[in-house]
Amino acid sequence: MAELVFVGLGLNDEKGITLKGLEETQSADDVFMETYTSRMPDFSIERFETLCGRKIQMLTRSNLEEENGKLILQAAKGGKTVFLVPGDPFIATTHITLRIDAEKQGIPTRIVHGISIMSAIISLSGLHNYKFGKTVTVPFSDNSSETPYNVISQNQKIGLHTLCLLDLRQTENRYLSIKDALWQLLDVEKKKQQNVITAGTPVVGVARAGSSDPALRAGFVKDVVNFDFGEPPFSLIIPGNLHFMEIDALLAFAGAPLEFRSLVR
Amino acid sequence: MAELVFVGLGLNDEKGITLKGLEETQSADDVFMETYTSRMPDFSIERFETLCGRKIQMLTRSNLEEENGKLILQAAKGGKTVFLVPGDPFIATTHITLRIDAEKQGIPTRIVHGISIMSAIISLSGLHNYKFGKTVTVPFSDNSSETPYNVISQNQKIGLHTLCLLDLRQTENRYLSIKDALWQLLDVEKKKQQNVITAGTPVVGVARAGSSDPALRAGFVKDVVNFDFGEPPFSLIIPGNLHFMEIDALLAFAGAPLEFRSLVR
Repeated sequence: MAELVFVGLGLNDEKGITLKGLEETQSADDVFMETYTSRMPDFSIERFETLCGRKIQMLTRSNLEEENGKLILQAAKGGKTVFLVPGDPFIATTHITLRIDAEKQGIPTRIVHGISIMSAIISLSGLHNYKFGKTVTVPFSDNSSETPYNVISQNQKIGLHTLCLLDLRQTENRYLSIKDALWQLLDVEKKKQQNVITAGTPVVGVARAGSSDPALRAGFVKDVVNFDFGEPPFSLIIPGNLHFMEIDALLAFAGAPLEFRSLVR
Repeated sequence: MAELVFVGLGLNDEKGITLKGLEETQSADDVFMETYTSRMPDFSIERFETLCGRKIQMLTRSNLEEENGKLILQAAKGGKTVFLVPGDPFIATTHITLRIDAEKQGIPTRIVHGISIMSAIISLSGLHNYKFGKTVTVPFSDNSSETPYNVISQNQKIGLHTLCLLDLRQTENRYLSIKDALWQLLDVEKKKQQNVITAGTPVVGVARAGSSDPALRAGFVKDVVNFDFGEPPFSLIIPGNLHFMEIDALLAFAGAPLEFRSLVR
């Protein structure tokens, strides 16, 4: 029976998938997978193929998005097809078009959710999920933009936290560091002078969210900019108004300095 | 070795957990679980105990939060203790205090993430994750408040989508319906007249996100208010500015009327 099931692989390694996701994979006629929309540092395709007892067809970014889509739709017309995607299948927007195309061609689609990196970062931080505003990606400095600064400013004005994902080019093994992201933001501050991000702004740096070895550091920009977070990938949270319970969490989990106590709003 | 591992159960049933989460549970000295912070409609404790080969100690809301915490910390001092929580352990704020207490008492903590309901709703909708602003819960009408209206208004002003979680009291089997939530918002509109939510406002209703049988309906308030979503739980998205790809997704997955095409911003 024609069917396309999008299955989230979750984070980090082959054990990030849910039992439901594994079952769907085991019972599929065809299984495709991509690992180019997100990084799964400890994932082994061999171990995963053993786990699910299936041969996986790997898709690369070098295949055009369109060609990958055609391959998958062709298979899905003939039987149950699983498409494995890092994180959650639709938290990144890349595969929404494929799902629309499938539905337009009369192929029923289903989703088996996976853990998204955004959800993991927020959960790790101890900050309250419902208090996050718009999310933004900080690009590499050669594509530097004022957008992240403006989004942070907009969120700050209404007291909300900003999750900043830091750019990465996995194939080139390039990852924007927390230090470089902060310097970019400070550069925009120098120009715009809106007091959005200065040496004394509280921030939270996060490395390797979702792995077995995450790192978290809360502090003022002047200190966090010099903190060694170790291996990538990285992200950054610029808090808005902080509740005392959020500050307690930053003190307990993220090495925040005691001065954070005075930030309660 | 003293250790407290928070493990997310994910959504819906006992197969919402990740392979990593299952492994941690299997290798724990003590296993606790709560199901009062979120609903897992098809979860069977018997099937889950068989799956992980372990006896689970269920905690109820009727135990005081504090007593539950004491039980868990006591166990964690003596060996590896797993605390199973619906969804992701820290997307709801309930258990952050327990983690802080553990760290203060020198008990190392770790997190094995689970899929959160918020992540599942956003992923299902086809709307772009980074364009969501602050999240809000719509209470039952006996606790009716202007807060949801104000949060939607604030997000709308800067073009962002609002995720509205609809209140539930699981023990009483009471769930706020999409219809009632919309009527509450329309009542506030009548009073405040800010044109935030009217009969012609586009909205997306979602039922049973994360289950094998989710329902999604996009349309104008006047139509969605009468749509039969079936079984709970429910949520509601009030879109901000819509990208044409988001509209395509709402047309393909959520039965949006063709008039939605004219909403492109």
